[in-house]
Amino acid sequence: MPQPSIHVIVIGAGFGGLQATRALQKMPGVQITLIDKTNHHLFQPLLYQVATAGLAAPSIAAPVRSLMRRHPQVRTLQAEVTRIDAAARQVTLADGQRLDYDWLIVAAGATHSYFGHDEWSPHAPGLKTLRDAFDIRRRVVEAFERAELEPDPTQRAALLNFAVIGAGPTGVEMAGTLAEIARHTLRGEFRSIDPAQARIYLIEGGPRVLQTMPEHLSQRALEQLNKLGVQVLLGARVSHIDAHGLEYLTAPDAPATRIESRCIVWAAGVAASPLGQAVASATGAALDRAGRVIVQPDLTVGADGRIFVIGDLAAAQSHVPGRAPEPVPGVSPAAKQMGQLAAANIARQRQGQATQAFRYTNYGNLATIGRHAGVVDLPTPWGRNLRFSGMLAWQFWLFAHVYFLIGFRNRLVVLMDWASAYWTFRRHARVVANLPPTRPPGDAAPPPATDAS
Amino acid sequence: MPQPSIHVIVIGAGFGGLQATRALQKMPGVQITLIDKTNHHLFQPLLYQVATAGLAAPSIAAPVRSLMRRHPQVRTLQAEVTRIDAAARQVTLADGQRLDYDWLIVAAGATHSYFGHDEWSPHAPGLKTLRDAFDIRRRVVEAFERAELEPDPTQRAALLNFAVIGAGPTGVEMAGTLAEIARHTLRGEFRSIDPAQARIYLIEGGPRVLQTMPEHLSQRALEQLNKLGVQVLLGARVSHIDAHGLEYLTAPDAPATRIESRCIVWAAGVAASPLGQAVASATGAALDRAGRVIVQPDLTVGADGRIFVIGDLAAAQSHVPGRAPEPVPGVSPAAKQMGQLAAANIARQRQGQATQAFRYTNYGNLATIGRHAGVVDLPTPWGRNLRFSGMLAWQFWLFAHVYFLIGFRNRLVVLMDWASAYWTFRRHARVVANLPPTRPPGDAAPPPATDAS
Repeated sequence: MPQPSIHVIVIGAGFGGLQATRALQKMPGVQITLIDKTNHHLFQPLLYQVATAGLAAPSIAAPVRSLMRRHPQVRTLQAEVTRIDAAARQVTLADGQRLDYDWLIVAAGATHSYFGHDEWSPHAPGLKTLRDAFDIRRRVVEAFERAELEPDPTQRAALLNFAVIGAGPTGVEMAGTLAEIARHTLRGEFRSIDPAQARIYLIEGGPRVLQTMPEHLSQRALEQLNKLGVQVLLGARVSHIDAHGLEYLTAPDAPATRIESRCIVWAAGVAASPLGQAVASATGAALDRAGRVIVQPDLTVGADGRIFVIGDLAAAQSHVPGRAPEPVPGVSPAAKQMGQLAAANIARQRQGQATQAFRYTNYGNLATIGRHAGVVDLPTPWGRNLRFSGMLAWQFWLFAHVYFLIGFRNRLVVLMDWASAYWTFRRHARVVANLPPTRPPGDAAPPPATDAS
Repeated sequence: MPQPSIHVIVIGAGFGGLQATRALQKMPGVQITLIDKTNHHLFQPLLYQVATAGLAAPSIAAPVRSLMRRHPQVRTLQAEVTRIDAAARQVTLADGQRLDYDWLIVAAGATHSYFGHDEWSPHAPGLKTLRDAFDIRRRVVEAFERAELEPDPTQRAALLNFAVIGAGPTGVEMAGTLAEIARHTLRGEFRSIDPAQARIYLIEGGPRVLQTMPEHLSQRALEQLNKLGVQVLLGARVSHIDAHGLEYLTAPDAPATRIESRCIVWAAGVAASPLGQAVASATGAALDRAGRVIVQPDLTVGADGRIFVIGDLAAAQSHVPGRAPEPVPGVSPAAKQMGQLAAANIARQRQGQATQAFRYTNYGNLATIGRHAGVVDLPTPWGRNLRFSGMLAWQFWLFAHVYFLIGFRNRLVVLMDWASAYWTFRRHARVVANLPPTRPPGDAAPPPATDAS
């Protein structure tokens, strides 16, 4: 006897939501509505390449609707969910429409957190969306352009200071790439300044870079950053950011040190999507300090098993029989695995079976730093991890990322762009759409983020 | 005896300014400052492909600074010129800096003109800059996305009406490509609407499309547009545009006809850059009705021969001995030829020779309409023009445009994107960076143009 058809709403077309949708679309009798605020799935691990003009946006973003075109049971909506009603099993969109669901998967992801200092946000954009990437690309391009125009040597030096806050994978990648741009890409292009004199600061509150990596790989990464000319400041907590620079403390009672900079990138804090609050209101689920929804072992929240929270929005734990639960890292493979399990747990519920607890499989940990530099930490079946750094790690990172990119065309174009950037040192996407804002000299407040490419 | 070194300022890095710079950089003893408001040279003939998501912006835009990197005598500045002082031989930048020149070439191009109705501009963007292209891309993508969400059938039909105003080459290309997107690209991607039911209006005040083409090629273009499903309205003058649609008249005393549309593209009027006014103030040169600077036969303005105006900013005439002067069309080959002559006339002045009058060589006139459709009009040495349309014209247009694109990488990527779009009907750059603005239902005022990709 065929089961009655069900309707699942998936909120968010990131790694988690997309994986859940793909698993659900293989099941008979499942109608899916996939809702995202943007019209594209973004391959976030390469977003820093868009920000640093190595890749064009369409190379790392695919229209969600187009990905789903061969699956008539999937309806794609570009819309914003503002409310969840668990009792009525409905979500409300920003335009007031309500949609009924049988099951709901919330995969709305994360945004950046300024640790209570939202006033820093206009001066130090984070890197989560295409718009963020264009904003940073414009700031980088304009810093050099302005320096070339600037007659005052002090102002000129400030324009050539770049600061990246947070030495996780994104911060390390950003800093390494900025150093490469300054030393190699722009060589010979300026007449009044020497771009190689740009200073790239990487500012980290903790004691080492890449803290989720084993300690000796952190050490390797630090050495590689130093070799690229990045000034790494460890144990440095940012205490202030304005339009002209930032200040940091190396001890709570030490005096603040100031760095003049017009181009500051925020790669430090992550906060869960505000939709976590809507989930909490609807289900009584608790949020952790970062605003993530604390989920049950099977990734549901609330009592009826109808709402799943996955990906960066979920404070989930990995459950291995016989071991204490461990927190799940906020990385894309974890989001994908949660999407897979949420879909499977819906199928189990439909068949009257018990749901399963989430168990995270770690396939490895990679970071790239710049040309020929990277670190890799791979678990092996033999219990000991395989760890390496340098040129080989960089190549491994490159092919792993191209492999997981969605779409044949994107893979080919990204490989081509990288090959061309590798041989020529050029970065083809150094294009910003806006005019430089006209300002009185000396006033360097950042313009609103209205840029493109 | 070596000549004393001279400094030439070139304003504008479009086709004219770039060609002038390239000619000047071959001459000994010439220092050049190339100033542009943006950081890139834009291959404008393919801008409509960025607007219709066929190409990524970096494929048709190259950083000016990068193009000039092997020429140390060329200094590139991303800046805006606000004033010209012919007596002091100085230009003033927006930040107040003044730069001295020995010769000045003004190639600041054109923008769109709404024929005195600047209030239409937020509702009907033109297509001159990358920002314009992103704005139009976003409107096209969002029209379909909103229609999919819209429960009201009248509103939904209005969202699926697209209007292109002006049936010159840009308007014809836009309308043909929009029809292709609606009929082919989006097929199978929507669940509530059928994108093939979108109506594409091409509205032209004159009696035929592509008025610079011979009459029978206009007729062919019209047939090809009709075949693609474009509704061509000839002799229709737009009398009103608002956030919800437009009105047009077919006779001065006829009642206005209204088309509801949320996505209107302005491809009708062209106005010279406001810098034309600065040239007029500095030199006493006259402007024509479109704001273009009326230049002397050798492309100079004023009495001292130190200021040239070229490209779309110049109202120039072609001087063929024994024939009456003819107006020069506003096309890229004309701008390039003017750039070449301006540089050569500077060299002649340096050597005490007389300058030469501008003579325009027409290498042909092409337009594409959509898949397999186009028209070509080529002069031949035998006096009779070679004219053809359809598939062959489309292929000719394609290779001519790829051939003139700057940079090997861009050529290859554009060819690849076109090959992929041709075989799959997909358009890879269907990515817009912004969130859809949250609005009360029924209010469809366009959001500010802050988009990207």
